[in-house]
Amino acid sequence: MTEKAPSENTVLVGGMILTEPGRTGVVKHEKTLIAEDRLVEVNVSRLTEEVDARIVDCSHCLIMPGLINGHVHAAMSLLRGLADDLPFHRWLNEYIFPAESTHVGPEFVYLGTMISSMEMALNGITTFADGYFHMEHAARAAVDVGLRAVIAQGILDVPAPDAASPGSWKGRMHEFLESCPRDPLISPALFCHSTYLCSPETLRDAAALARELRTLLFCHVSETAPEVDDVAHRYGRRPVEHLDALNILGEGFVAVHAVHLSDREKEMLVEAGVGVVHCPESNMKLAAGACDASGLSRRGVAMGIGTDGPASNNNLDLFEEMRSASLMAKLVTRDPEALDARTVLRMATIDGARVLGMDDRIGSLEPGKFADVIVIDPDRPHLTPMYVPESHLVYAARGSDVRDVIVNGRMVVDHGRITTVDEEEFKARARTMASEIGRGVGLRECGE
Amino acid sequence: MTEKAPSENTVLVGGMILTEPGRTGVVKHEKTLIAEDRLVEVNVSRLTEEVDARIVDCSHCLIMPGLINGHVHAAMSLLRGLADDLPFHRWLNEYIFPAESTHVGPEFVYLGTMISSMEMALNGITTFADGYFHMEHAARAAVDVGLRAVIAQGILDVPAPDAASPGSWKGRMHEFLESCPRDPLISPALFCHSTYLCSPETLRDAAALARELRTLLFCHVSETAPEVDDVAHRYGRRPVEHLDALNILGEGFVAVHAVHLSDREKEMLVEAGVGVVHCPESNMKLAAGACDASGLSRRGVAMGIGTDGPASNNNLDLFEEMRSASLMAKLVTRDPEALDARTVLRMATIDGARVLGMDDRIGSLEPGKFADVIVIDPDRPHLTPMYVPESHLVYAARGSDVRDVIVNGRMVVDHGRITTVDEEEFKARARTMASEIGRGVGLRECGE
Repeated sequence: MTEKAPSENTVLVGGMILTEPGRTGVVKHEKTLIAEDRLVEVNVSRLTEEVDARIVDCSHCLIMPGLINGHVHAAMSLLRGLADDLPFHRWLNEYIFPAESTHVGPEFVYLGTMISSMEMALNGITTFADGYFHMEHAARAAVDVGLRAVIAQGILDVPAPDAASPGSWKGRMHEFLESCPRDPLISPALFCHSTYLCSPETLRDAAALARELRTLLFCHVSETAPEVDDVAHRYGRRPVEHLDALNILGEGFVAVHAVHLSDREKEMLVEAGVGVVHCPESNMKLAAGACDASGLSRRGVAMGIGTDGPASNNNLDLFEEMRSASLMAKLVTRDPEALDARTVLRMATIDGARVLGMDDRIGSLEPGKFADVIVIDPDRPHLTPMYVPESHLVYAARGSDVRDVIVNGRMVVDHGRITTVDEEEFKARARTMASEIGRGVGLRECGE
Repeated sequence: MTEKAPSENTVLVGGMILTEPGRTGVVKHEKTLIAEDRLVEVNVSRLTEEVDARIVDCSHCLIMPGLINGHVHAAMSLLRGLADDLPFHRWLNEYIFPAESTHVGPEFVYLGTMISSMEMALNGITTFADGYFHMEHAARAAVDVGLRAVIAQGILDVPAPDAASPGSWKGRMHEFLESCPRDPLISPALFCHSTYLCSPETLRDAAALARELRTLLFCHVSETAPEVDDVAHRYGRRPVEHLDALNILGEGFVAVHAVHLSDREKEMLVEAGVGVVHCPESNMKLAAGACDASGLSRRGVAMGIGTDGPASNNNLDLFEEMRSASLMAKLVTRDPEALDARTVLRMATIDGARVLGMDDRIGSLEPGKFADVIVIDPDRPHLTPMYVPESHLVYAARGSDVRDVIVNGRMVVDHGRITTVDEEEFKARARTMASEIGRGVGLRECGE
């Protein structure tokens, strides 16, 4: 774990501010005071006291809450582009699982998560919910880059890169919980891969452990149609019904994907207060299907938005993901009003925070909340002129429009540059590891 | 018209090169010589003669043909974000047409096209096919920024911003052809809005004029289901059947959108050798429907890709548009192999050139072709590591990864900066005009 930079006071001055997308509009911004890790005063004309602070000039810029990536397998940046344009189960079983079983270890997870964390930071993502293996090393990377992260250790009943014998996940989980860095940025959690790769006993035990530890439990739920058929065949119930019968649905459970749901299953999610993370680009790319995101949202399900891993997306740009969520919803519902700009902005901020049980701490800019703030520079041809900032954020902007990123009061990106780690060093190390991974499948790493 | 910068010799050195996406792979690049407006030697180890040239160091970069935006209404950047999340016909009739009838004049078209041309240049688009009004002023903007453009004058049988009385389009066309700048970058053309806003006589006369002038004739075809119903009701034929009956389908005709086609209509397009421009993001955003792009492509239809106007997209990033085309095809066909990376790269380059009848001059990097070249910098976390460059170009890259843009031998973008015009001046002028446009609908231009 690298040394943490000391927090300091920061005052943002000028520009425009969007304190809570979808509830407040964009207004003229005067001054916002950040002390240590917290927002102290938001958009006031005069600070209540004199402070010794770094001044960040936000003139002509747009200040908003940092984006929340509700689902990612960050380390998979090292497998990005290794296999595309393939059916889901071939992609997973013939390419991803074999590459993972050969290469995924602590160094892979640390390096891959470093690359993704740098990408996410540059794109204005201040919190991500990660699920993979050797997760204490993912946590190290998030801490080093300076991002807030929910770090969920993967659980499978087939051999995993960090738990060779099926059923050995409990030992691995113990090890993870022992060695995961204790850092204010990190919330440990559990991630059961799915109802088809985790047995009913494993799901029940994992849920009991999550309750005991008061952590989140993530699970891929009904991502593909074959998965639903498989689970229905084995257990006589569709995945959400199966989870309900196991008494797992409820607060703290997060359903990822939720593409193929019956009406009854949708109601079960509503009744149990289960949050859903929608991953539109991954679902499209793998031809998994289309989550009824606008329908679930209308029923009152807390909906976040996720990129999924960089091997099935293949980028971690949540501005683009908001746009894709909205465009996909309009396409499949044939309703151009579906998932409008304000709704998807909420999914990527305050509603995403709600799914992670963190809406009292992040997701909007309010005094007392953590200072997770991004500054967007709209002085570019593709954002000029600007009538409705929320429209531009969803329908025209991209991660590269983010100028500054503050997480927990710390400046992680300053004028488009990562300040916390040496980007060049980690890209070089990632390329070296990728050369070896590529060799295994007859490909060359060619970014050098 | 501003003065044209003198052409000069340029030698690109190092990096990787993709000379024709989908046919050639990415290979190590040695040297490429550009003399005046043409590619002279492409990827040779030693130039045949000593040349006095500007050297562009492309080490670690990816060199490829410039992207071709097959359909845009560039001036509409001044209306971007004015109205979103609305049904197509309300969007068009209640917001776009009224705003256009009030504001669209020569200055609007010039300024709006300047903004879009700067955006397109920065995103690596070297050729665009534009359709709108007062088009000699769009041509001026393209020439000033230094982009190659097919400039198609709009034709409608309802009052247009530049032809107040229905039926007066012939006079306007004459005026346009007289005053359109004669510049090697500009190809004038005709753009009939649609079969529902142009009468059979107008369509026939425009087609005859296009044949006489040997120019392209563009037409929005079967974009929405109500359009198909309307045309079928009025003429007893679906739009493509209607165009076929009018004897308009054929070389030089370009069908834009082509979303709602019967099998018979698809065959008609194949038989007539008509090119199609697919605009996936606009079709999704307006909930118009999904063009069967992979099916048309498999049948052998020449398929280009277009952003459509910035008021219905809302950006002009063809990297993102390639990605959306592929993801949308995978979603609607439920086939993850649909429109793979190489196919959409062709749509954005050589196949797009074929649709515009320019594949002997642009769309790939070959000696004798125009020097329309882009240089992409993949040294960024979201493109690291890189196993398959074509995959990264389609599934991970974005316009902001383009470093240099050369059009017709001239450096238009150098290290991410427009070299040809004063970006700040034109953004300021666009904001001033937008303040007035916004006032008309109760919105404020807030980018200042």
